[in-house]
Amino acid sequence: MNLFYVKPGDVQGKSIVIDGQEAIHISKVLRYSEGDQVIVTDGLGNEYDCKIINVKKKSVYLEIVNSERHTETNPKITLCMGIIKKRDRLEFAVEKAVELGVSKIVLFEGEHSQKGRVREDRLESTVVSAMKQSLRFFLPEVFVEKNISDAVSKHAENTKFILADETVAKSDRDKKGQPSELFLMVGPEGGFSSSEREYLKNFNPTFYSLGGHRLRAETAAIVMVDRFVRLQ
Amino acid sequence: MNLFYVKPGDVQGKSIVIDGQEAIHISKVLRYSEGDQVIVTDGLGNEYDCKIINVKKKSVYLEIVNSERHTETNPKITLCMGIIKKRDRLEFAVEKAVELGVSKIVLFEGEHSQKGRVREDRLESTVVSAMKQSLRFFLPEVFVEKNISDAVSKHAENTKFILADETVAKSDRDKKGQPSELFLMVGPEGGFSSSEREYLKNFNPTFYSLGGHRLRAETAAIVMVDRFVRLQ
Repeated sequence: MNLFYVKPGDVQGKSIVIDGQEAIHISKVLRYSEGDQVIVTDGLGNEYDCKIINVKKKSVYLEIVNSERHTETNPKITLCMGIIKKRDRLEFAVEKAVELGVSKIVLFEGEHSQKGRVREDRLESTVVSAMKQSLRFFLPEVFVEKNISDAVSKHAENTKFILADETVAKSDRDKKGQPSELFLMVGPEGGFSSSEREYLKNFNPTFYSLGGHRLRAETAAIVMVDRFVRLQ
Repeated sequence: MNLFYVKPGDVQGKSIVIDGQEAIHISKVLRYSEGDQVIVTDGLGNEYDCKIINVKKKSVYLEIVNSERHTETNPKITLCMGIIKKRDRLEFAVEKAVELGVSKIVLFEGEHSQKGRVREDRLESTVVSAMKQSLRFFLPEVFVEKNISDAVSKHAENTKFILADETVAKSDRDKKGQPSELFLMVGPEGGFSSSEREYLKNFNPTFYSLGGHRLRAETAAIVMVDRFVRLQ
């Protein structure tokens, strides 16, 4: 089964037009033609079952035959992590977090991070393909913040803040019921600086031990998301 | 903390000689010199705390100051998965499985797999660096088998066989106590063929649902290993 993505504005009443690379993929790679059925999402929870009306060189015209509105999982999960300098590792972490079910990804530059330029356009296309691959109907948003305080102050409000910490042996006990949003933070490569640590204390996060072996930043991010998604 | 790896034969009484790339890394990149302390493992569970005696261009001579014998976690986990055609995804799965704690990795060519050549030398160096990175003292072995029946018949004996299966909604209940070895199998890209499915039934595996979204092969492998390592 293939899922296709269009921007919400590309859905007009009963019609959808797919342009660009996605259209070329449908016509040239998958060789779909008039009358074939495809499933499309707008990334806002809508699933559109469509029939192909017309295939042109760079545009595919669809008619919506049936539509379904999905609801997002609860609690919504934000993954917040330091930028990983190696692009393939960063993209892997983002891809896996989307496959496993996060709603939002916040990246920040840690004080101890090695500097690396983030290609936001590439990250966005990673997110779109991971959404399609995993058959999700919600497109997670990606934010790149210049430091930890922007990452937390802009995105952790009204969430339960859970901090993966290598220095704790056991996770905090926590039985305070179901929060509606979780904010999962994984330290940057090179670890938190002491001022970052001090800053985080203000938010009174729940400390979570990833346990066992020393993990790379992207591994920590992936397993943390998987563990909290499964608690839902 | 840096951990270095030598082949068991490179440990002679109280002396260790590190050669090749690892020696160049110590002398040129880390710029260690006589008197510095390093930690070395032979991948067989031995941790050697050493002092550098002499640094030559391509060899570093060490004296063992102290040694410790680690015991392997129980149960030992084998990850068995189809070969992933894209090399970076395959190497990523192998790296993460080692970081998270597997003892053995068995790769096989599925009937529905797209053919891809496996660079065993690259996989071995991936395994060594992941072991060092995660501060483990046991070097997992990697086996590449030509089909599923070789993979299972050679490696699943005397293990508890757990099969990740997209087609089951819930995992089998299982309370039969602690087995000493787990054999975790993840289906190949493209899924099992019907003859592969029939073959697997002979082994009466426990079916395990990864749940939720459709996962790529490498994601399934990573989260499955993480979940079973944590049950230990």
